[in-house]
Amino acid sequence: MTETFIQSVFFENGVLKILDQTKIPNVTEFLEITKIEDAWDAIKQLKVRGAPAIGIAAAYGLLLGIKNAPDHSFDVFYTVFKKQSDYLATSRPTAVNLFWALKRMNERVQKEKAHPVAQIKEALEQEAHFIRNEDEEVCRTIGENALTLLHDGMGILTHCNAGGIATARYGTALAPLYLAKEQGWDIKVFADETRPLLQGARLTAWELMQAGIDVTLITDNMAAMVMQKGWVQAVIVGCDRVAANGDVANKIGTYGVALLAKAHNIPFYVAAPISTIDLETKTGADIPIEERDASEITEGFGKRTAPEGVKVFNPAFDVTPHEFVTAIITEKGILSGNYEGELPKLFQ
Amino acid sequence: MTETFIQSVFFENGVLKILDQTKIPNVTEFLEITKIEDAWDAIKQLKVRGAPAIGIAAAYGLLLGIKNAPDHSFDVFYTVFKKQSDYLATSRPTAVNLFWALKRMNERVQKEKAHPVAQIKEALEQEAHFIRNEDEEVCRTIGENALTLLHDGMGILTHCNAGGIATARYGTALAPLYLAKEQGWDIKVFADETRPLLQGARLTAWELMQAGIDVTLITDNMAAMVMQKGWVQAVIVGCDRVAANGDVANKIGTYGVALLAKAHNIPFYVAAPISTIDLETKTGADIPIEERDASEITEGFGKRTAPEGVKVFNPAFDVTPHEFVTAIITEKGILSGNYEGELPKLFQ
Repeated sequence: MTETFIQSVFFENGVLKILDQTKIPNVTEFLEITKIEDAWDAIKQLKVRGAPAIGIAAAYGLLLGIKNAPDHSFDVFYTVFKKQSDYLATSRPTAVNLFWALKRMNERVQKEKAHPVAQIKEALEQEAHFIRNEDEEVCRTIGENALTLLHDGMGILTHCNAGGIATARYGTALAPLYLAKEQGWDIKVFADETRPLLQGARLTAWELMQAGIDVTLITDNMAAMVMQKGWVQAVIVGCDRVAANGDVANKIGTYGVALLAKAHNIPFYVAAPISTIDLETKTGADIPIEERDASEITEGFGKRTAPEGVKVFNPAFDVTPHEFVTAIITEKGILSGNYEGELPKLFQ
Repeated sequence: MTETFIQSVFFENGVLKILDQTKIPNVTEFLEITKIEDAWDAIKQLKVRGAPAIGIAAAYGLLLGIKNAPDHSFDVFYTVFKKQSDYLATSRPTAVNLFWALKRMNERVQKEKAHPVAQIKEALEQEAHFIRNEDEEVCRTIGENALTLLHDGMGILTHCNAGGIATARYGTALAPLYLAKEQGWDIKVFADETRPLLQGARLTAWELMQAGIDVTLITDNMAAMVMQKGWVQAVIVGCDRVAANGDVANKIGTYGVALLAKAHNIPFYVAAPISTIDLETKTGADIPIEERDASEITEGFGKRTAPEGVKVFNPAFDVTPHEFVTAIITEKGILSGNYEGELPKLFQ
């Protein structure tokens, strides 16, 4: 680690280190985890968040669970491996990357099963590092691709947190900002606070400040004025899912930002690892939108700030139709327009 | 008072009753004020808010301060009147309506000075009621005018609180909603919570609920999605100042809502008593925009929700250029387009 970036999950000398994201931005504290039970707990309690980061934590957590497994017999070892893997899988049953990482660890075991157990353990540690390093590579490549659309001196607005602490490093939407900083560019970032859960205020502002990037926090309803003032030359956001026609589901508020960008002739970019592109989903209308509890809006800050019993609409995501997306930036290149025709080519 | 609306300031049997707006939405409590010192305190402590409501509270508060003034001599009476009026003026030195109401009470004294003091006191009570009733009349007329632009079954989105509790009754932007309710219309209102100070969540949602109007609370960044779903057929907001060219300054976030409305072909209406129209201000660019303390965004709910030391931009208002304003609704009629030519005619 250098002083200019925070890794939220890493493995050093047999210890799993996890940035406790529940304490951000008030306290920066790394958990030092040596037992699988504590890894399980960190995932369960959302101390590690962000799909890629959860997958990485699971892979490293599994190493802790098998380190003392008997070395004398593959079958005995594998019984322990399986039990620990199944245990970790219960920590957050809806997290796709968790299962993906555990499955990949299991595939490595199968591949190595002819070797002595001690060697399998070494291979698994290597595999966990691969998972982490591949994610960093994907994010860095997205950042490099995105950087070709940006330039020194720019003002850039982002929404929610598609940042480094949700991934191995760099993040997706924030990746080009870190690379811009590495290149010595002078950029100015505006972070929407992102109601109701304030990921922009709590996480994005925090991680960019850690990296010494010039960031200004605004409430979501100030984005239009910041654009009107001419302070923003590009918007870049992450995404939860990209449909086959290029429609993008992302954190609630993203669609509004896209419309505001269009009204001010500002390009609207979506950073999307190809793992988020779902060709089975034809259009944004086919993406289910989770509605969350009213209390996130009415008492999200510990104190009730709306009338008892008020009706609330609280969708977690919205869909930005593809015509408002200037470009989709992936680790395999940049698409712009004709998403329906171009997205499948990324998988060929 | 009927059960379907809340009057935030009224005078009954010599008692000034003020809805304590600092306790809304959690507690509905009316202060029963019989001493001018308590009226001063209610204004100072923002227990009464909204320019018209403050003016009304000052006029009634002044009655409490003079009720025991000697009746035998005008000069002795007027010394007390002046002292009490000057005292009330110190409660909130930036509130224009406060001074306006006190000045009007003084004008009435001057007009009545030939009469016995007891009669002057009666005239002043009448004047205070006039101030209140005229405000109600202005609001009701704005509401009636606005209603001609709306229809039964509509979805209507509003931002911040331009509501009944800020005025004698009805409010400005909310006035047509109360009248629609009186007519038995079935309307559905979406209230932006309005960060950072949450006037939409705390006040608008509350007062519409009191009146039995169907209101749904959303965060500011959900407005675009609500429009995308086809749930909104009109936006109506209040304003702080209208410039001579029709540019409108209003609570931060209003400009963004106007752009979103335009993108969805939804009319964007501004309710503006002519007292807010300032022909001396040529365009919106000439309206000074107050920037407020960062803490409203970083710890507005009692708990810190953003990194220590983060840079914040916190403008209290924004300016919506006149081309995005479908109509300006005043008590003297509705203007639509050619604001520069039409606004001066309201004052002829």
